[in-house]
Amino acid sequence: MRAFNFSPGPAVLPTEVLEQARDELLDWRGSGASVMEISHRSPSFVEVATRAEADLRELMSIPKNYHVLFMQGGASAQFSLVPLNLAPPRATVDYIDTGHWSQKAIAEARRYCEVHLAGDAGGSYGAPPQDELRFSGRACYAHYTPNETISGVEYRYIPETHGVPLVADMSSSILSQPLDVSKFGLIYAGAQKNIGPSGLTLVIVRDDLVGRARAETPRVFDYKAIADQQSMLNTPPTFAWYMAGLVFKWLKKAGGVRAIGERNRLKAEMLYGAIDDSRLYKNSVAKDSRSRMNVTFTLSDVGLEPLFLEAAGEAGLTGLKGHRVVGGMRASLYNAMPIEGVEKLCAFMRDFERRHP
Amino acid sequence: MRAFNFSPGPAVLPTEVLEQARDELLDWRGSGASVMEISHRSPSFVEVATRAEADLRELMSIPKNYHVLFMQGGASAQFSLVPLNLAPPRATVDYIDTGHWSQKAIAEARRYCEVHLAGDAGGSYGAPPQDELRFSGRACYAHYTPNETISGVEYRYIPETHGVPLVADMSSSILSQPLDVSKFGLIYAGAQKNIGPSGLTLVIVRDDLVGRARAETPRVFDYKAIADQQSMLNTPPTFAWYMAGLVFKWLKKAGGVRAIGERNRLKAEMLYGAIDDSRLYKNSVAKDSRSRMNVTFTLSDVGLEPLFLEAAGEAGLTGLKGHRVVGGMRASLYNAMPIEGVEKLCAFMRDFERRHP
Repeated sequence: MRAFNFSPGPAVLPTEVLEQARDELLDWRGSGASVMEISHRSPSFVEVATRAEADLRELMSIPKNYHVLFMQGGASAQFSLVPLNLAPPRATVDYIDTGHWSQKAIAEARRYCEVHLAGDAGGSYGAPPQDELRFSGRACYAHYTPNETISGVEYRYIPETHGVPLVADMSSSILSQPLDVSKFGLIYAGAQKNIGPSGLTLVIVRDDLVGRARAETPRVFDYKAIADQQSMLNTPPTFAWYMAGLVFKWLKKAGGVRAIGERNRLKAEMLYGAIDDSRLYKNSVAKDSRSRMNVTFTLSDVGLEPLFLEAAGEAGLTGLKGHRVVGGMRASLYNAMPIEGVEKLCAFMRDFERRHP
Repeated sequence: MRAFNFSPGPAVLPTEVLEQARDELLDWRGSGASVMEISHRSPSFVEVATRAEADLRELMSIPKNYHVLFMQGGASAQFSLVPLNLAPPRATVDYIDTGHWSQKAIAEARRYCEVHLAGDAGGSYGAPPQDELRFSGRACYAHYTPNETISGVEYRYIPETHGVPLVADMSSSILSQPLDVSKFGLIYAGAQKNIGPSGLTLVIVRDDLVGRARAETPRVFDYKAIADQQSMLNTPPTFAWYMAGLVFKWLKKAGGVRAIGERNRLKAEMLYGAIDDSRLYKNSVAKDSRSRMNVTFTLSDVGLEPLFLEAAGEAGLTGLKGHRVVGGMRASLYNAMPIEGVEKLCAFMRDFERRHP
């Protein structure tokens, strides 16, 4: 029995994708071997890799002058690799601080660059509006986190940087709605939310930003070296890449990012509606910055939280515990979470409130 | 039908391990989710991670004063991360050159350190004997590659470095035979040969070598930061870690590294015997340096090679093509290759020779 799994990441994958992976796990395409047992340089795996990139390009309408890199190390590695690849020593870089993950990226960038804070959430739960942003005017790039998974804050706009390359950590929002990639210099994302298993990181980078790496950048993490070798400079995480390819195919079949974006909007509306309509549940994020991917809420009676989690688990609703640094609850509604899961969660929440008035 | 898969890596995994992974791929331990869909910080995954490390420590008899790190980036990332973590700028480091992978490690180390060549294979196919090694006497560490997968060369001894920490790239030999870990300062290995799927890298490092990273080392690749967080500084490749844990359990059940080492010796002896007994096949490696993991051979009639590969494939013997830089054939005999696979390969080779005298 599959649960409805609201885990923030590693997160739910489409059941159809897991079923296909299961069915061919010991004998992939009649090869007599698992896809994870064959050489990354074999023609059959190269075809998987190429097809996955082509499907991603189609899904996101990625312009031709962008490279797509399949890397390792997670978004956290990119916190270091972005400055190492894009900014010379002592350069100024602009960062917007909207919470936990922005701050992690900023802390790492400070080890390599002069960080100018172009804006922050000011202690409130929300994304700063464009007219509050103050860019330095001399930055190599400007970085932000379009969706903060821990607090559940999402930007509803793309910051205008007046020609400075915009860099975004899209780990928790990539592929969740239509996006104009041409507005960005670089997009990076850990796979474990909307793409596939953990251990794979996508980097989508405009070609003029490739080839600027500092001398000390490890070669396997130099964007140019990776791009020149179609992400096969060394052995890539082949199983995760294959799974990402299956997820991209599933997404195309589901109607692409426009259709999934509409479904994601409905799912979030339904859950925020259930929260706002109740006396027991509360979401603290400014309404115009509420995340469609990660819906956070607290219970007015904090003492009920362990009971809530336990009863939810028994009802087949898992992964709802909030991040350890903020507590409370969090329901992550990534692409693979079906509408039925959110309906069931809302019904459970109403029922739980009725039983604990 | 499972083939006998002699791929050099990603390589064959134990069929029992794949069967278990398949059976629980959609519902792991009754959780209603795949192991790849749950948080790396959930108690059930932390237990998987902890158990895997404990089993590896038991299998390799890893002393208490060594850390075991579960990293990303492959052995190729370690080519950079070893000097970044162990050697200050302009330090001298000793490297022994015995082929393709040593040379890759050396090229990367030269970007960070003064590399002193302590020995080389001198153009021959073999490992240099101890009395030909010339260490600098002032190195932060000495690096070698105990098994060169491409040429099929293996050291039959552990170099004596007189107190200088010995660093070894054991990607293709880890867990293949008993090993005295205490002779090493650091051992690293990509998982995709004897451990699990690609995308996971093991680092076994003595505790006095941890905490020396250069300022520019990306934080997620700083051995101390990783050790301090039990390899969960950021999201690890959870599925690969889980698979490694299953492989370790399988290896314990198979009798551990002593039993598997004996089986590996038999497998290699059988195949080298078949080569040496024939007129068609030839192995060029010095007999005292022949690899037990990667058996290379050429056909005296090079024109027959495509036919050999095709007929082998039809007989269910796959992954036998040699590395593109050297050509010829290569049969990789990692732990998960059963004796029956090698018997079948030897019988096929004899039959092929008879049909093509």
